[in-house]
Amino acid sequence: MSSALNLHKELNGKIEIKPKLKLNSRNLPLLYTPGVAEVALEIAKDSEKASTLTIKGNTIAIITDGSRLLGLGNQGPLASLPVMEGKALILKELAGINAFPICLDTQDPEKIIETVKYLAPSFGGINLEDIASPKCFIIERVLKKKLSIPVFHDDQHGTAIVTLAALINSLKIVKKDMSAIKTVILGAGAAGIAITHLLLDYGVKHLNIFDSAGMIHLGRKKDMNPYKEEIAQRTKAAKEKSFKEAMQECDVLITVSGKANSLTAKDLKGMARKAIIFSLSNPVPEISYKEAKKIGKIVASGGSQDYKNHVNNMLAFPPIWKGALESRAKKITKKMIIAAAEAIAAAVKPSALNENHILPAISQKGLIEQVAKKVRETV
Amino acid sequence: MSSALNLHKELNGKIEIKPKLKLNSRNLPLLYTPGVAEVALEIAKDSEKASTLTIKGNTIAIITDGSRLLGLGNQGPLASLPVMEGKALILKELAGINAFPICLDTQDPEKIIETVKYLAPSFGGINLEDIASPKCFIIERVLKKKLSIPVFHDDQHGTAIVTLAALINSLKIVKKDMSAIKTVILGAGAAGIAITHLLLDYGVKHLNIFDSAGMIHLGRKKDMNPYKEEIAQRTKAAKEKSFKEAMQECDVLITVSGKANSLTAKDLKGMARKAIIFSLSNPVPEISYKEAKKIGKIVASGGSQDYKNHVNNMLAFPPIWKGALESRAKKITKKMIIAAAEAIAAAVKPSALNENHILPAISQKGLIEQVAKKVRETV
Repeated sequence: MSSALNLHKELNGKIEIKPKLKLNSRNLPLLYTPGVAEVALEIAKDSEKASTLTIKGNTIAIITDGSRLLGLGNQGPLASLPVMEGKALILKELAGINAFPICLDTQDPEKIIETVKYLAPSFGGINLEDIASPKCFIIERVLKKKLSIPVFHDDQHGTAIVTLAALINSLKIVKKDMSAIKTVILGAGAAGIAITHLLLDYGVKHLNIFDSAGMIHLGRKKDMNPYKEEIAQRTKAAKEKSFKEAMQECDVLITVSGKANSLTAKDLKGMARKAIIFSLSNPVPEISYKEAKKIGKIVASGGSQDYKNHVNNMLAFPPIWKGALESRAKKITKKMIIAAAEAIAAAVKPSALNENHILPAISQKGLIEQVAKKVRETV
Repeated sequence: MSSALNLHKELNGKIEIKPKLKLNSRNLPLLYTPGVAEVALEIAKDSEKASTLTIKGNTIAIITDGSRLLGLGNQGPLASLPVMEGKALILKELAGINAFPICLDTQDPEKIIETVKYLAPSFGGINLEDIASPKCFIIERVLKKKLSIPVFHDDQHGTAIVTLAALINSLKIVKKDMSAIKTVILGAGAAGIAITHLLLDYGVKHLNIFDSAGMIHLGRKKDMNPYKEEIAQRTKAAKEKSFKEAMQECDVLITVSGKANSLTAKDLKGMARKAIIFSLSNPVPEISYKEAKKIGKIVASGGSQDYKNHVNNMLAFPPIWKGALESRAKKITKKMIIAAAEAIAAAVKPSALNENHILPAISQKGLIEQVAKKVRETV
C-alpha cells in the first residue's frame, strides 16, 4: 500500500471538528440551552451578528460535484472527499480558516446552484472546486448574484492569480512590458478562460487562446460556448491562426489544456527571444522541463518536480479567503484578485528574483498575512 | 450583556475545524496532490472505503431550517446556528463524533429533502433538528428511503428514547406494568407523536393523545394530518374523551405541548395512585414542580431547574449516533432506539433508583459508551 493510502487509513479523516473549549456543568447552560436562546434571538434581531457570535464569520464551504477532480476527470462526489479535506486542512494551517468539504450528489448545474444557495447560511464564503467547465462558469456567476457572501472558484481564479503573479515577475526579468507582449493560452477550460480575462484586465493587449478545436475567434462555430464567445469578443480575434503561426514571435505561452506531454520544443519553434513558458497542467505538464528549456528563458509548471518554478494555487486561495473573511467582503472582486497577484509577486525580493525563482515559497514567513493584508486593503 | 452572549462573542464560534496532524513539506504531497489522487481513485473503485479513508465514517450533519427553534418558534436558519453549534460541541465532547451544523435557507419540505439528499455524501449520518411538525415527519421518512446513511430527528426520537427510559425506571418504583398502565400524552407535535409510537411499540396498551383540538380519535375531522390519523388508527380510539375524563385513573401523563404553565394540579385531578408526571416542554414546563408534586409520586421535566428528574436528550443522541456510526448502520432502527432506552434505564443502579433519581446523570462515567455498546449490538 502506498504511503498516501496508509496515512489516510491511519487518520480516518484528515480534519476534525473540535470544541473551542471544554464542556463543563458551568458552561453547558451558556453554550447550549437555556443560555444559547438569547444568542439565537440576538441574531434573529440582527443577522450581521452571526459573523461574530457563531462560526459563520471564519468558515467556508468547499463545494464540489467531483466532475473534474484534479487531473482525474469525473470521479463523482465521494472520491472527491479526501481532496477537499486536504484543501480544508491547508486552509486552516496556512490561513486559520475553518473550511468544511461538501461533496454534492448531483452534477446538474441548476441543482448545484440551488443546493449551495440553501446550505449557505452556516458559511461566510463558498469555495467552488473541481467542477467541470463550462458549467463551473454559470454556477459561479449565478451564485455570486444570489448570495451575499463571497463565491470563489479556485480552479479559475486561484490559478489566474498565481499565473499573473508569475508573469509580473517574469516580465521584470526579461524586461518586457505587459502591454507589448504577445501571449498565447492553450486550453479554454476553467483556468484558461479565467487567466485570459485576468491578463486582459491587467493590460495584456495581444493574446490568442486555443482549445482542441483551434484558435477561438469571432465567427468560429465549432465547439463554442458563451464563455468562449465572450473571449472571442474581448480578444477581437477576427482571423484564425494555426498554433504554429501563433507561436511566431510569441513572448508568453501558458498551457492549461490538461493534456500531459502533448508538446515538444519543436511545437514552440519561432517563439520570441527570452520566451516565457508556463506549462500548468497537473500532475503532468504539457511539455517537459527539458523541452521547454530549449525554447524558453523562464519556464514554470503547475507542480512537476522537474521544474524549478511552481505556479501553485496554495499561494492564492489561503490569503484571498483570509482577506475576504477578515474584511467581511460580500464579494471577491477583480480588484482583490489583482491585489493578491501583485502582493504575491512583490513577496519575491528584487535581489532574490531570477529565472529559477519567480514566485515566493509557500513556507516564506509572513507571506499569507502579507498577501491577505493587501486583499483586505482593497475591500 | 448576559454571560451567554459574552461567551459567544469571545469565542467567535464554539467549534472549529482542525487538521489531525501538522502540515509539513513531507506530508503535504501525501495529504494533498499528488498523493491524494490515489486515495480518490481507491474510493472511486470502492465507495465503502470512504468510511475509513475520509471523515465520512465519523461525521454527521446537523440539519435545521430553524422553523421550530428550541421553544422560540420559527427563527429561521441563521439564528439557529449557535444552537446547532452547541449540539455539535456536545456530540464531540460526549461521543467523539464530528458534527457540522448546516442551517438551510429554505423551509419548504421538498427543497429541504432535495438539499439534504445532494449534500449527503460527505456525511455518515443526518441529524434533523428543530424542524416544525408535521413537516418533520415527511422529511424524515423520505430521507430515510432516499439515503443509505442513518437519518435521525432528535426532537422526535431522542426525546422518545429518554422518555421511555424514564418510564421504564418509574414503573419499577411504582410497581406497575407497561401493559397495564393508562397513559395520556398531551401534545401531538414531533415529540408527542414519536413518544406515542415508541410506547405503543414497547407494550403500552392504554394510551390517549391530546392536542389543542382535543383527543385524537378515529373519525376526528378537525386539525388532523396523516401522522395524527396514523395515531388514531394505532390507538384505536373510537370515542372522544375530554382531558378531564382521560385523567381519571390515569397512571402516566406526559406533556409535550410547548405550552408553558398551562396546567395546575386541579387539571390533573383524578389521576391514579402513584401517578407519574413528565412535563417536558422547554424551557418552561406545562406544570410547575410544586403543582405536579401535589398529584404525582414521580415527576420529571425537560430541564426546569425546579425539578429533580430531567428528561434530557443529551442522554440519547450522543450514544445512539456513536453506536450507529461505529457499527456502520445504514438506518437507526426501532430495535436500536429501544436498546438505547433500555440501556439508559439500566444505567441507574437498582440501589440508587428512587423517585428523585429515575435517570442517570449525563456525567456518569462510561455512560455514553455503555449505551452506544447496546445500540451497536442490535445492528
